[in-house]
Amino acid sequence: MTKKSKRTAFGALATLSAVAATSPALAGDAAVTETQYILNSVNFLIHGFLVMFMAAGFTMLESGLVRSKNTATICLKNISLYSVAGFMFYAVGYNLMYDGVDGGFLGSFSPWAGNNAEAMAGKFDAGYAAESDWFFQMVFVATAASVVSGTLAERIKLWPFLAFVVFLTGVVYPIEGSWHWGGGWLAERGFADFAGSTIVHSTGGWAALTGAIILGARRGKFGNDGRIHPIPGANLPLATLGTFILWLGWFGFNGGSQLAMGSAADVIAIAKIYINTNMAAVGGVLAAMVMTQVIFKKVDLSMSLTGAIAGLVSITAGPDTPSLGAAFLIGAVGGILVVIFVPLFDKLKIDDVVGAISAHLMAGIWGTMAVPITNADASFATQATGVLAIGVFVASTSALFWLALKYTIGLRVTPEEEDLGLDKAELGMEAYPEFGQGGHTVWTG
Amino acid sequence: MTKKSKRTAFGALATLSAVAATSPALAGDAAVTETQYILNSVNFLIHGFLVMFMAAGFTMLESGLVRSKNTATICLKNISLYSVAGFMFYAVGYNLMYDGVDGGFLGSFSPWAGNNAEAMAGKFDAGYAAESDWFFQMVFVATAASVVSGTLAERIKLWPFLAFVVFLTGVVYPIEGSWHWGGGWLAERGFADFAGSTIVHSTGGWAALTGAIILGARRGKFGNDGRIHPIPGANLPLATLGTFILWLGWFGFNGGSQLAMGSAADVIAIAKIYINTNMAAVGGVLAAMVMTQVIFKKVDLSMSLTGAIAGLVSITAGPDTPSLGAAFLIGAVGGILVVIFVPLFDKLKIDDVVGAISAHLMAGIWGTMAVPITNADASFATQATGVLAIGVFVASTSALFWLALKYTIGLRVTPEEEDLGLDKAELGMEAYPEFGQGGHTVWTG
Amino acid sequence: MTKKSKRTAFGALATLSAVAATSPALAGDAAVTETQYILNSVNFLIHGFLVMFMAAGFTMLESGLVRSKNTATICLKNISLYSVAGFMFYAVGYNLMYDGVDGGFLGSFSPWAGNNAEAMAGKFDAGYAAESDWFFQMVFVATAASVVSGTLAERIKLWPFLAFVVFLTGVVYPIEGSWHWGGGWLAERGFADFAGSTIVHSTGGWAALTGAIILGARRGKFGNDGRIHPIPGANLPLATLGTFILWLGWFGFNGGSQLAMGSAADVIAIAKIYINTNMAAVGGVLAAMVMTQVIFKKVDLSMSLTGAIAGLVSITAGPDTPSLGAAFLIGAVGGILVVIFVPLFDKLKIDDVVGAISAHLMAGIWGTMAVPITNADASFATQATGVLAIGVFVASTSALFWLALKYTIGLRVTPEEEDLGLDKAELGMEAYPEFGQGGHTVWTG
Repeated sequence: MTKKSKRTAFGALATLSAVAATSPALAGDAAVTETQYILNSVNFLIHGFLVMFMAAGFTMLESGLVRSKNTATICLKNISLYSVAGFMFYAVGYNLMYDGVDGGFLGSFSPWAGNNAEAMAGKFDAGYAAESDWFFQMVFVATAASVVSGTLAERIKLWPFLAFVVFLTGVVYPIEGSWHWGGGWLAERGFADFAGSTIVHSTGGWAALTGAIILGARRGKFGNDGRIHPIPGANLPLATLGTFILWLGWFGFNGGSQLAMGSAADVIAIAKIYINTNMAAVGGVLAAMVMTQVIFKKVDLSMSLTGAIAGLVSITAGPDTPSLGAAFLIGAVGGILVVIFVPLFDKLKIDDVVGAISAHLMAGIWGTMAVPITNADASFATQATGVLAIGVFVASTSALFWLALKYTIGLRVTPEEEDLGLDKAELGMEAYPEFGQGGHTVWTG
Repeated sequence: MTKKSKRTAFGALATLSAVAATSPALAGDAAVTETQYILNSVNFLIHGFLVMFMAAGFTMLESGLVRSKNTATICLKNISLYSVAGFMFYAVGYNLMYDGVDGGFLGSFSPWAGNNAEAMAGKFDAGYAAESDWFFQMVFVATAASVVSGTLAERIKLWPFLAFVVFLTGVVYPIEGSWHWGGGWLAERGFADFAGSTIVHSTGGWAALTGAIILGARRGKFGNDGRIHPIPGANLPLATLGTFILWLGWFGFNGGSQLAMGSAADVIAIAKIYINTNMAAVGGVLAAMVMTQVIFKKVDLSMSLTGAIAGLVSITAGPDTPSLGAAFLIGAVGGILVVIFVPLFDKLKIDDVVGAISAHLMAGIWGTMAVPITNADASFATQATGVLAIGVFVASTSALFWLALKYTIGLRVTPEEEDLGLDKAELGMEAYPEFGQGGHTVWTG
Repeated sequence: MTKKSKRTAFGALATLSAVAATSPALAGDAAVTETQYILNSVNFLIHGFLVMFMAAGFTMLESGLVRSKNTATICLKNISLYSVAGFMFYAVGYNLMYDGVDGGFLGSFSPWAGNNAEAMAGKFDAGYAAESDWFFQMVFVATAASVVSGTLAERIKLWPFLAFVVFLTGVVYPIEGSWHWGGGWLAERGFADFAGSTIVHSTGGWAALTGAIILGARRGKFGNDGRIHPIPGANLPLATLGTFILWLGWFGFNGGSQLAMGSAADVIAIAKIYINTNMAAVGGVLAAMVMTQVIFKKVDLSMSLTGAIAGLVSITAGPDTPSLGAAFLIGAVGGILVVIFVPLFDKLKIDDVVGAISAHLMAGIWGTMAVPITNADASFATQATGVLAIGVFVASTSALFWLALKYTIGLRVTPEEEDLGLDKAELGMEAYPEFGQGGHTVWTG
């Protein structure tokens, strides 16, 4: 049964509330009523379109945080990575992640055949429309890839980046995802990652981190004088808009991961997830604001936006069990991590254009490790096992693939192209041809 | 029972359509089926996320209507006010508004304890998940605060503004909200404000008006020569986007305020509310366009956008009873009010950066007073009582708090900082560092 | 019965899946349970608000693709066309399209009386709230008009444009729409256009094409030297955002067109429509990217965005029958059409500012003709009949109306106004007064 293990891992939730009798949908193979079937499917559809819209959120966030001379390119990378991710999940990812994993390390290599009348007819017992589940899972893949594009912006070439997206969304994500959500070995050990702090966000974060190291920093970011030169983004209202869109999308990301809405117990869980998700983002924003005020004597907008995202990532592994107060604190720690790690990665000369490694990887690890604090069914040892196993797998496969690209087709534009801007160099256009310096370079080191 | 009075006030609606038998959900304490329970909760969740997204709408609207040198600051104010509002509603607001008001003037001072398994289990009889209701109420609080930020933009300091938001969302809004929606004295008198023309929008408007008077106008807005200098916003497509996002969010704002979706009568009411809400915005846009064409010989985009918002505010007190034609006219009057009051406030030297006082306060009063025209259960006298009582309460408490801030930590940046722009002065950054004049000042009087 | 014919034409769908017994909602006049009634209405409401938000998507797309001196005007045109469309559909469109068509060529000329308690009470048998259906149909009208504004941007006067919108949304669209969805003569012949590749998108496209020919090209687009001068848009991240918003909205556009969600068969169909819609857009993006890389040696962002839209338009006539692989190919052909037709229209000196004729008309024709490939109930001959009949009707009536406007109140701003920019000339304002060249002209030919 698809994602049965995810359900099993969190099936205990259903007993949190004594309100409703056992939800038949949660049983996975029991009969459901037609109304439950519809509501379970609607859960995937509505929450799925919210997650799909996160692609726009990442695009706006990254468009706002890069320089104007690289803005069109980051737009193109985002719409194409979403497209590639969707195609790859169809071509190979879905069955690799969900088909016959059975406690192992991967599923089957075959295109998804779900859009087939006979296959569908046989899936009524699953309690939801197979296509609605496929839609919901597909939009998650794209999110993992979205994390990568921001970190590597302003110097990576388009096609090698897309080649990596093919690898990440077609192979890496489905395999590590199968370990938990596909019912693989981590699921059997009781690993708890409700909506993907590790499976989605840390995965994107490890891919971004290895890419940033192998690709190197942007010219001028770390001067010959040993100083770090901040490179401000060109359009902060767009970055703010992107953050709000991501915040909105996260209700779908976490809420929909309840995987069912056909019982009172499910809808209570979803509602609790909504308010915890929101409160964690609130914690992330406020913690980052206070931290930057105290440390830098000025509140930093970019850090506050990244704090919101870190708060959201932090709660994603377990949005269903904390109280509102605990959710606030979990998110606040995420916001603090951003304020600590963004300057730290700078000191390490790892150039992360949008702070995604801090927000998605560091907060993702924190969120995953925090689950046992409020969830008695999770253990720190198992959480650490999952974090490490997935980290090692994703970091090593990503590094190998980045290196392979580097020494074959090449990863990086030339210094001249980087100074000129990727928009002119790679696309032959400008994002804002009439505004100010337009495509001209501001920072050249 | 939470919000029982809001339901009671509009319970008569259920009889508007003879289609369905009495909706058990509306009875408040009767048993509901599990399907009704789910659908009632889904109403809060879906419409709640639409209202949450209005925070992005306000951010874009205000980002577009301020000068570029103050844009990053208005972005930060918006994401932080949403965060503060959510935290305050958790810390004190919810129970102050809804717990044990019983015909009185306020509820209890205690943090919300709803995220507690026992409390939840006891709330099945309410007919919806307690957390879904909390989510929906929480996003309304933020809306009231959002109204304030736009009016006071470009000269108020960040932390004093947030201190006011703490006061508004933690104390003022919950207390006046308790009078009607919490089942307080206005509810017992039959005050009718379906989704908050007065409780949300006028409340924000009064807070903005008192703030604008006490804070004073932007430098250069009202010249020594006695002339009014228009200060154009820096990014009108963002303002347009913000208006569309608000329009979208308003389907949640008004539609969700039906508070139930578990019966045919409820969904008919919600559908009627959707089309009336849309038609009122249409009326606001078209009226503002025609008015500005006739008066100024040119259609004004800003006025048309503000007209849309005024149309939406106007219908908010009673979106459930008018015909489509009446909804159009109610909204059109809102649009006309904007074209009258925006220049009038200028003449009174009250500097409202985004026209929020006209759109939210004046149209909010109009909308509340217009309810009895199409709703036989409402009376002009009671509506006037509510408008006045809430106006006096919010205006006086807000004024006192603004004055207290002014004479303690101070409200306003220095003239030098104002000329430099709040982004550089308060945040040490620029919203658009590469574009044109960037953070430089355009208007200095 | 409203839209009965649309249902009849696609009623065969219900038998695609053997999962559920006959959906009573699909029978049109049979009794439905209260839960089905609610879910059918919710389908219209949720998918309707997604389609409504497409107005924001078109606004952002067009704002990004015009020059900064014409940006405020295109914003105003978009919010006003949405408003006019909603009003006209109320004033005359709905009944003209749906009331008593009975196999003929148009319905009745009378304002919609649906917001009437008696009328509503009588519609319970329809299986959904009449107002929810009205909402869903209304937002479709606006989409047709949105197609036109982009093509004609940067030189058409505001009020004549709105006069055309009155004609298109009040007369042209309802009449041709009645032929299929209203149960007219095309419905009786079995024409298949599930969500409007022809009825909505090609209709907007024909109106845009005739307008572009009669209005003429922008000054400087086609130089005296016989060369084509590209005129780049001023703000490509906004264009990208608009594309993502449209992509999101299309789940509502196509998904909601199932017209019911009260049975397992319906929700399965909706879920299938979602994933096919998404995959067609993926095909459009990837095809346009590869095509532009191969032909121009550089990937073109604008073409890729237009490719996404063309993919979406292509699948709209039949999103319910293809496999995911077929949906990908159908969308990919749409993307290829864009890369072929955008330069071709340039060669023909037909100036389409945003590529809407290629994306909506050409891909709309393709999508409609492609239906029989995967839908055995459709025939190429009937599809061609519908495409031709609607094309001739819309093109001829539009051309006549454009010509009537041209020779009475005039269509086009003066050359001086065009050079100055419509924002200053028509609205007396600037969209970005502080940025770079602001309202100044870049291209004057």
